[in-house]
Amino acid sequence: MSSPARLTDRYQLTMLAAYAESGHAGRRAVFELFVRRLPSSRRFLLACGLGRALALLDGLAFTPGDLARFDRDPVLGPALGRPRVRALFEGLRFSGRVFAVPEGRVAFPGEPLVRVEGTLAEAQLVETLLLSIVNHDTRVASKCARIALAARGRPCLEFGTRRAHEQAAVDAARAAYIAGFAGTSNEEAGERWGVPVTGTMAHSYVLAHAADAGEDGEREAFASYAALFGAATTCLVDTFDPLRGVERAAEHVGGALRGVRLDSGDLLALSRGARERLDRAGLDRAGVVLSDDLDELKIAALLDAGAPVSAFGVGTMAVATPDTPSLGAVYKLVALEDASGAMVAVQKRAPGKGSSAAPKQVHRQGFEDVVGLATEAGEGEPLLVEALGPGAAYDRSTEAARARAQADLAALPEALRSLAPRGDGEGFPVTVSPALARVQAEVARAGRVTL
Amino acid sequence: MSSPARLTDRYQLTMLAAYAESGHAGRRAVFELFVRRLPSSRRFLLACGLGRALALLDGLAFTPGDLARFDRDPVLGPALGRPRVRALFEGLRFSGRVFAVPEGRVAFPGEPLVRVEGTLAEAQLVETLLLSIVNHDTRVASKCARIALAARGRPCLEFGTRRAHEQAAVDAARAAYIAGFAGTSNEEAGERWGVPVTGTMAHSYVLAHAADAGEDGEREAFASYAALFGAATTCLVDTFDPLRGVERAAEHVGGALRGVRLDSGDLLALSRGARERLDRAGLDRAGVVLSDDLDELKIAALLDAGAPVSAFGVGTMAVATPDTPSLGAVYKLVALEDASGAMVAVQKRAPGKGSSAAPKQVHRQGFEDVVGLATEAGEGEPLLVEALGPGAAYDRSTEAARARAQADLAALPEALRSLAPRGDGEGFPVTVSPALARVQAEVARAGRVTL
Repeated sequence: MSSPARLTDRYQLTMLAAYAESGHAGRRAVFELFVRRLPSSRRFLLACGLGRALALLDGLAFTPGDLARFDRDPVLGPALGRPRVRALFEGLRFSGRVFAVPEGRVAFPGEPLVRVEGTLAEAQLVETLLLSIVNHDTRVASKCARIALAARGRPCLEFGTRRAHEQAAVDAARAAYIAGFAGTSNEEAGERWGVPVTGTMAHSYVLAHAADAGEDGEREAFASYAALFGAATTCLVDTFDPLRGVERAAEHVGGALRGVRLDSGDLLALSRGARERLDRAGLDRAGVVLSDDLDELKIAALLDAGAPVSAFGVGTMAVATPDTPSLGAVYKLVALEDASGAMVAVQKRAPGKGSSAAPKQVHRQGFEDVVGLATEAGEGEPLLVEALGPGAAYDRSTEAARARAQADLAALPEALRSLAPRGDGEGFPVTVSPALARVQAEVARAGRVTL
Repeated sequence: MSSPARLTDRYQLTMLAAYAESGHAGRRAVFELFVRRLPSSRRFLLACGLGRALALLDGLAFTPGDLARFDRDPVLGPALGRPRVRALFEGLRFSGRVFAVPEGRVAFPGEPLVRVEGTLAEAQLVETLLLSIVNHDTRVASKCARIALAARGRPCLEFGTRRAHEQAAVDAARAAYIAGFAGTSNEEAGERWGVPVTGTMAHSYVLAHAADAGEDGEREAFASYAALFGAATTCLVDTFDPLRGVERAAEHVGGALRGVRLDSGDLLALSRGARERLDRAGLDRAGVVLSDDLDELKIAALLDAGAPVSAFGVGTMAVATPDTPSLGAVYKLVALEDASGAMVAVQKRAPGKGSSAAPKQVHRQGFEDVVGLATEAGEGEPLLVEALGPGAAYDRSTEAARARAQADLAALPEALRSLAPRGDGEGFPVTVSPALARVQAEVARAGRVTL
């Protein structure tokens, strides 16, 4: 397994070395991670990834193996020959403080999702790793929250493993679960994250029984599965004729049948036909599971039309999130200790990209958010909490994150819950406090402001 | 580290158990992995992922830890109590044969990228893992090949780590390198895959020096980096005024300056201004590196306009591939041994999804491909080679894959190399042999055909 300290961009390492030589490495610094914008199809973010990130920050250090690799490198090797650089690399641990929007909370573009306070060296080093984790997990969770809302209480199952990198898939399952999905097909996500693991069967399973008997093999396929798995049997019925498949499942599995899955065709008509046949067979507790490139809009349309669905399987759309394939979160230095020991707010000159300077806090009153200076009192609930550091009392568990999401999503007002795209100029319920605006205007003018 | 055998969908495990009980587990089976379609923006695939996949198949087995987890599971546990199921799970190794399009070769939708021949149990089990790997790596490599072609020989550097899951990023760097990128920012990709690792500096690095001196701190930032890294110094010049940044880099780094990087603004105008200032300072060997959400179309437009660029940094577009965020490759059972010992071609009844039945080979003559039966002689070069099995003489190395890509991309005819979208009805240079068409028509009619 790779050292987490090496899951990073090379320039973090060269900058670290340069900070060691120039004497900047130990200066206090504040970085913030935030999403700049969202496509018009989206109305909110669901913060996700923090639990995973904190676990990696806890033990972050360069291993002897890392240092040996750096020593062999033609660029890093000579730099590590310098005593100050070597001392920094050998001694580096993450000992900073992390303030963050707890996993599972609703958040918006322009709000810091994570604020890291520490030495310049440690806070700089974690940039890439934090971005990789939070970009990925928040991207998946934000989409899955919409999908779960669209399903109106019916369970959604995450089936996207084959559409994601094999390791990303395990964490995508966690993000989907936090966002309200009921479970995943991903076996490892059960072990690693405690996500309920579920599954049905593949077309190949039914086809395997058709090699001998043709389409009649479907009977054997269903019966032999049920003989082994009893009440955990959901039959995939659309390998041949879907409604004939429902009849075979009803007949050959009978009372044990948990459900039937339809994965192609006219899902509305087929789900009605399937429901009718199950009811006719007296299997009113057997459900109809739908899958086939479903997203929140297709799910809403099916339910609006009255499709009798008991659960949705969602794969590609949950993990590849085609309407926002990259979240584009960034991580910016917002304040730094100067030579006199004072903290100074800084930012890149960035026409059109908004302001990022100064450490911030978000205060929320009923999903109306005010972004202010971290030192401002503010009214309402402070959204960022200390997640790592001396004052941290943060529950990193996946279940806690899921509970937070459940609470936030249940309280979401209609304007944010809507699946309709935002209109022209329709933004997010976020304003900037006068004090923060003053500091940012001054930084834009003067390049830096002493805090 | 998780056991690769657990990086899978739950249903692979339940199907395995059912195959053990029904006696199907040991039957010979053939599965094929292929991409059904591509968006009109694309003209070819670059096969990628095989090298990684083979390394995992080699040692594939359920570990004692895996079995202990399955035993605790309420669904799997009882099934594993059955002797035949237990024996299958405990003894399972991948001992099948893999035929595949070598990594780095150009391929098209409708062509098998991987054909797996083995027992039904082993060939079924690897479905999810193969799809996760090949979907991800081929998706990234296919996009990066277009980007590298657009750059017309100028080096492209993969900077997308922060836009990808932290583990996916390491393998995305490999895929980009195979497709023709010159290097990556991903530190771990250097160690794991031998990809050249490179980097410049971040805006935060320059800002860190501005806390004391304001914008003049840029001088110190450049000078102190160059003092440590000499000729490996590429200065990020757009933290404040980009062209003033170029002048500072030229003055304070001087002859050691490898290049300047521009990451925002009007890249065409700025690259010209940067080139001019570098030349004026006598630094004609220092290059101009451009980044900022670049893709193949933006790169082509910059070069068409004569932008004096020496290298491109490409991040989001290379790893998130927004025009095809999921490749949608599938893995289908195409033939199976029946009770009499004969091999039978099978397929799902799938209106509109094309035919998949029967084991196939692709023959290529100058990028005109014919997909035929695996047993057909065919004319031209057979595209799938034995990559795992008794006859395998396949070079899995990343360098070999990169060399194959270089050769294929250099030979690509203009019609495939074009960055323009395919027109209405413009497909791919792929036809189906009469013999395969006959078998598939017969399977569509009869459900199965003895081969």
